[in-house]
Parts: sequence; C-alpha cells; structure tokens
Amino acid sequence: MARARLVALYTDFGHRDVYAGVLRGLLKTLAPEAEVLDVCHEIPAGDRHAGAFMLLSAVPYLPRGTIHLCVVDPGVGTARMLVAVRSGGHTFVAPDNGVLAPVVEALGGATEARYLTNEKLQHASRSATFHGRDVLAPVAAHLVRGIDFALVGETAGPLVDLPGFAPAVGESIVNGRVLHEDRFGNLVTNVLPDDLPGLGPAWRLEVGGRAIEHWGRTYGDAEPGALIVYAGSVGFLEVAVRDGSAAQTLGARTGTAVTATRRTK
Amino acid sequence: MARARLVALYTDFGHRDVYAGVLRGLLKTLAPEAEVLDVCHEIPAGDRHAGAFMLLSAVPYLPRGTIHLCVVDPGVGTARMLVAVRSGGHTFVAPDNGVLAPVVEALGGATEARYLTNEKLQHASRSATFHGRDVLAPVAAHLVRGIDFALVGETAGPLVDLPGFAPAVGESIVNGRVLHEDRFGNLVTNVLPDDLPGLGPAWRLEVGGRAIEHWGRTYGDAEPGALIVYAGSVGFLEVAVRDGSAAQTLGARTGTAVTATRRTK
Amino acid sequence: MARARLVALYTDFGHRDVYAGVLRGLLKTLAPEAEVLDVCHEIPAGDRHAGAFMLLSAVPYLPRGTIHLCVVDPGVGTARMLVAVRSGGHTFVAPDNGVLAPVVEALGGATEARYLTNEKLQHASRSATFHGRDVLAPVAAHLVRGIDFALVGETAGPLVDLPGFAPAVGESIVNGRVLHEDRFGNLVTNVLPDDLPGLGPAWRLEVGGRAIEHWGRTYGDAEPGALIVYAGSVGFLEVAVRDGSAAQTLGARTGTAVTATRRTK
Repeated sequence: MARARLVALYTDFGHRDVYAGVLRGLLKTLAPEAEVLDVCHEIPAGDRHAGAFMLLSAVPYLPRGTIHLCVVDPGVGTARMLVAVRSGGHTFVAPDNGVLAPVVEALGGATEARYLTNEKLQHASRSATFHGRDVLAPVAAHLVRGIDFALVGETAGPLVDLPGFAPAVGESIVNGRVLHEDRFGNLVTNVLPDDLPGLGPAWRLEVGGRAIEHWGRTYGDAEPGALIVYAGSVGFLEVAVRDGSAAQTLGARTGTAVTATRRTK
Repeated sequence: MARARLVALYTDFGHRDVYAGVLRGLLKTLAPEAEVLDVCHEIPAGDRHAGAFMLLSAVPYLPRGTIHLCVVDPGVGTARMLVAVRSGGHTFVAPDNGVLAPVVEALGGATEARYLTNEKLQHASRSATFHGRDVLAPVAAHLVRGIDFALVGETAGPLVDLPGFAPAVGESIVNGRVLHEDRFGNLVTNVLPDDLPGLGPAWRLEVGGRAIEHWGRTYGDAEPGALIVYAGSVGFLEVAVRDGSAAQTLGARTGTAVTATRRTK
Repeated sequence: MARARLVALYTDFGHRDVYAGVLRGLLKTLAPEAEVLDVCHEIPAGDRHAGAFMLLSAVPYLPRGTIHLCVVDPGVGTARMLVAVRSGGHTFVAPDNGVLAPVVEALGGATEARYLTNEKLQHASRSATFHGRDVLAPVAAHLVRGIDFALVGETAGPLVDLPGFAPAVGESIVNGRVLHEDRFGNLVTNVLPDDLPGLGPAWRLEVGGRAIEHWGRTYGDAEPGALIVYAGSVGFLEVAVRDGSAAQTLGARTGTAVTATRRTK
C-alpha cells in the first residue's frame, strides 16, 4: 500500500472561526506532503450521531489509505480518551465517544485501535480546550509522515458505543428516528430497507406521527408537493417532498420519531 | 495542451451535508492526480440562473484546461440529460438544463458536446437521486485520467437554453432583473453596459420601481448611504450602497425587476 | 528557504458568492504550483479587528514561508494603499488598513514592507471594486512564482495602526472588549493573562456588566450551565458556559465591554 497522504476532515467547527483553517495549516506544517480534503465542517455542535452518519456516508467514496480526522467532541475539557483506529483499509483519528462506532462496524470492525497517549506526538503547549489542534491533527500528521501505528499510544479497549444510532427492529414494528435533515429538506431516517422485509406499502411509515403513503425510487416518482419515501443515496430510507421540503411539510427534524408498522392483511 | 488536472466545483449542495465532500473524495479515488478547486457550493437550491451567473463570473479566471463540474439540478430524479461540453479550452460537465448556456455562448459556442450515456463510466450501483456523485463526478474523473472525450457518450443535440437570463433590450427601454444579491447586499443585474448606449444619466434606471440617480465607477464615488450604479467586477451593472446594503435599502432581491428607460431631451 | 507554495486565504467574502473561488482560480492560473489553503472566509464584512484576530490565531500554526492573503477591505473603492509585508518568515499581502498590525507586531515587526504600486503585476483590466482579485491575488501569485520582493512596488511607510485592538491596561483596572464570538458561543476577549498580574480571583472580571466568578483551566472545570473564564487556545482570556453559550447567557457579542478590576484585600 502506498503511503497515505490524504487527510479527510469531519468537524463541528463551522465556517465562522479559524479552527478548521488552523487544522489545515498545522497538517501542512507537520506533514508538507499531506493533502487535506474537507468532508464537512457543519456537523451540529457536539452531535455524535450526525458525525457518525457523515462518516458512514462519505468513507465509502474516499480512497483506501485515507486518514479520517473527526472532531465532534462534547467532552473536550473533560475526561474521555482520544483514539486512532484502523479498519477496512482506512485510518480514523477521533475522540473515543461513539462517533466512530457505526462506520467501524460497517467496515467489519477495528483491526487495531490505540489511545493517543504518546505525548511526544502532541503539541508542546497543549491547550485544555482545542484537542483537535493539539493532539488529533498532530497524530494524523505523524501518520501521514509514516510513523509506525503502534507509536501513537497504548492499545485501546473496545470502542465506546453509540446508543440510539440504530433503530429498534421488531418483527412487525420498527422504531427509529430522523438522523439528518439535509439542505433540501429531505429527511434521512436511521431505518434501512432491510429492516422492513417486503419493503413498500406492506408497511405503514410514520414520521412525527404523520403517515407517508407513497413509496418510490426517487422524488420524480411523486407528484410535485407530495411526500414520498425511498432508499436514499447513502442507503437509509429517506422522506422527501418533490420540489419542496419534507422537513417543513412534516414539521420534522433531527431526532423526530420514525415508526414503521407492518399492515395486517 | 497539458493534461487537465483541475476540477472546479459549482453546486447547490451547501455546507451542512457531506455531498460536496463526497464529490471531492470520489474524484480523488478515481483520479488521484486530480486537484479539486471549490468555486461555490451555495448556489440557491435548483437555481439555474444563479449557477449560470457563477460560471460566467468564475470561468475567465480559471486555467484553460479546467474541468468545470456543475451540479444544479432541479430535475434530478426526472428525465433530463447529463452532458459534457468543450468550449473555449474549458470542459464542462453538468445537467443539460440551461445552466451551461450563457457561459458556453460567452466562450464562443461549444466545440463538442456529448450526453453522458456511457454507463461504464458511472458508479456501478447508480442511485436515483445523487447523479452528481454517481455520474457527473466519475465522468469528470475519467476526463482527468485522460480518456478520449468521445467515450463519455453519444453526440449531443443543441444545448438546452436558459430563458430569462438576458434582459429584453429595446432602443429606449431595457427590461432586466436582479441576477444575484451578494454577501454585501450589492445587487448584480443582468444588464450590460453595452445594453445602454451612452451609459449614464441619459438613462433612468429603476430597481424594484425605485430610481437610482447616481452613476459612478465604484462605491467610493457615492456618499455613505447613497445608492449608486456602476459596472461591476463581472461586467454587469451593479447597484450598491456605500457602507450599506442596496438589497435592504431597496427591498430588492434575486428576480426583482430592473428597468432602464432612455430619458428624452 | 524553499520557495513558498502555500497561499493562505483570510477574507470577508463568505460562501454564497464566487469571490473566494475566483481568488483560488486566479492563483492557480498565474501560479500553477500554488497550493491554496483556506483559513477563513467568514470574517464579518469589513471588520478589521476580527481579521486581525484571525491572522493572530492562525499564523503560528502555518508553515514559515506561507503567503497570507487577507482581504478585509472596508475602503475598497476609496483611497487606501495595498501592501506586502515580510515578517517572522511569513509574507502578508493585504490592504494597509490596520488588519496586519497586530500579527506583524506579534512576529517582532516588519522586516520589509512595500506598497503594491507595480501595475505590471496587476490584472490588465483592473476593476474599481474587486482589488482582491485584480491586485492582491496576482501579487501573491507572482511571489509564489519567485519574483524578487522589491518588484511588488515602492518601499512602504510604517503600517497603519489598529486602534482598539489591545485593551487599556492600568495597574488595578483593565478595559477591554469582546474580540470574537465563536460558533460555540464562547467569547474571546482582547485581554491577555499577562495583563492581569496574579491572574485569578484577585481580579473581578465583568463582561457586559456581569461578573464571571469562576476561573478555570477549561470548560470542564465548571458545572454545566456555569460561566467560566480561562486562557483560551489562542492565548486571550475567554468566557464560556459549559454545555451552553456564553454569548447567549450574557447577551454579549463582538464589541461588548470587558472590564477587569483588581480586588482590594
């Protein structure tokens, strides 16, 4: 495998501050050969479920060998471990707070995981509040430079889990939630087509208590203004309104309940 | 001509989702030598006029040989063709919905245009809703890799037009509209200085029914707070308020009517 | 020193326009070997103090040799000089309006400064309103290409100062202000720990007239919901609310008064 050069960024830093810019700059300072690829900086502040969803959505489209640096860290300034994980040919550097759990599971589990306990790799005057800059980015840069993975720190225990990311799947009822509301007002649920055997009108789907009657392959299968459910581009069921916003129409948002009930004949 | 490496992105994906990040990642996966250049991801959702304006504004400043990937696609999930166009030393990959028409015309017309009908270049499990990822970006990546242009698909018919992009120009009256409201509240109209022979106070300019009395070369030619019209940095007439927002002052926005009437002596 | 290739961008262009994209494109047109690094494009429009703060925050983390291109220009279209400055191994290109003063002072002063008066380096059809594109970016590109620094123009006088950036520091009272409100609602003040000898409860700190009682090392040192002051990641004193927004709690924002008064025993 050629040496990784690509560092992909997933953060809740937004765009109004220099935080993401500082990460980019520091990566180039410590590893001039690094190529920085911005995936998303608008993860809602501290929202580990949204961060996990974004990793899951993007990782399959990035080159193997990429180092994925994820900073969603409601616990910065408090006790929690930082971790580096190898899985499916990718490397992840992030807080060990559950944000990595879904993508690592989708990739077949971790082949190696270590806590970032080697202080020699960190910024000399480590701040108490900006571990993305002072620990995570330096470790990512050292990995770009080709240091042995074992040097990042001691072997980690099992990754912290992310409760609530997957729906509760029963035989005739599935209880999930809206995972993400995208720019177009489409609602990505955490329900997979495989969670609903015989997918389609055999199931009654409700979002925020309101039924979505139309099942299709894409928005274009509905009339303008009509609600429709289909398997979205990431694989989860999504609800949309053709030429409109499902979020507005349903008054729904991230966290809104999604229920699928099998219709009796 | 050296092989193109630069892929410029123009989308309505915004920043809160991973969509633009996934495009970047996929381009690097399929064409590791690609350099991605973000032009703008905040085209208003589905607004082909705004997308056309942004292409027109940016293309002259990007290197010849650039591949311009534009995703403004109100018709995703419905019938419309995707197209690749060569024009003026640049290559464009976009939906054939009019968004390319103004820039290709400004570059002197298309030298070659093909529909993206070669499914071998597309993502194997093509989704019904994310053609930017599954068709447009893969084709752009293959062009970076140097495939023959003819391989992208069958020869296209004339490009779809974009009605309403240019003003209606008469001898003593020009009817146009606001094309774009920028971050500073400046209003870019679709009227060109050449549309108004003898440019200046010989013409009465109204935006949203209110006259702009002052013609100048730049904001600095007006008093603070005063409205002024001048030839903007892209070439169109713009209306601004020095140290203020013309959009707020005039209650105007994208689509607001702009009328120029020749004064009688 | 190896030739600089990195051009770091700091602008108030936002993301809804093509302005930043045009800068990137033009840099690649004029200097194909340039690497563009976006630090921040959301400096509030025309806010030189915020721009100065961002330079101060980011420059220490970028490689020496970087060319920092800063466009915060309330005076575009009016009289003011554009300048290139070498300081501390970095090069800056910006309007001479005070935005560079704090970072250049922090780096130990300018080793060389020149006004951008060489019109041969500028865009042929220089617009009156987009000097970032027509003057600053071309000069940065020529510097990437390796032209002699003296060619950018005539030797500059002392840099324009930035009144109000530093607090008024007295022996028992320090009067400062909020310099920046970040995405998380944390308030960065312009007060340095060294401005308050014996830092801690010996000083009474007020933001917007309300006292902050708790001094700590990080948010984690406070109870959820409690206000806390600590030395932030850039070095200035910051006020935060653990798991909340100090800006909302205090009704404070950029410009809000910050006062530190030494308590008498």
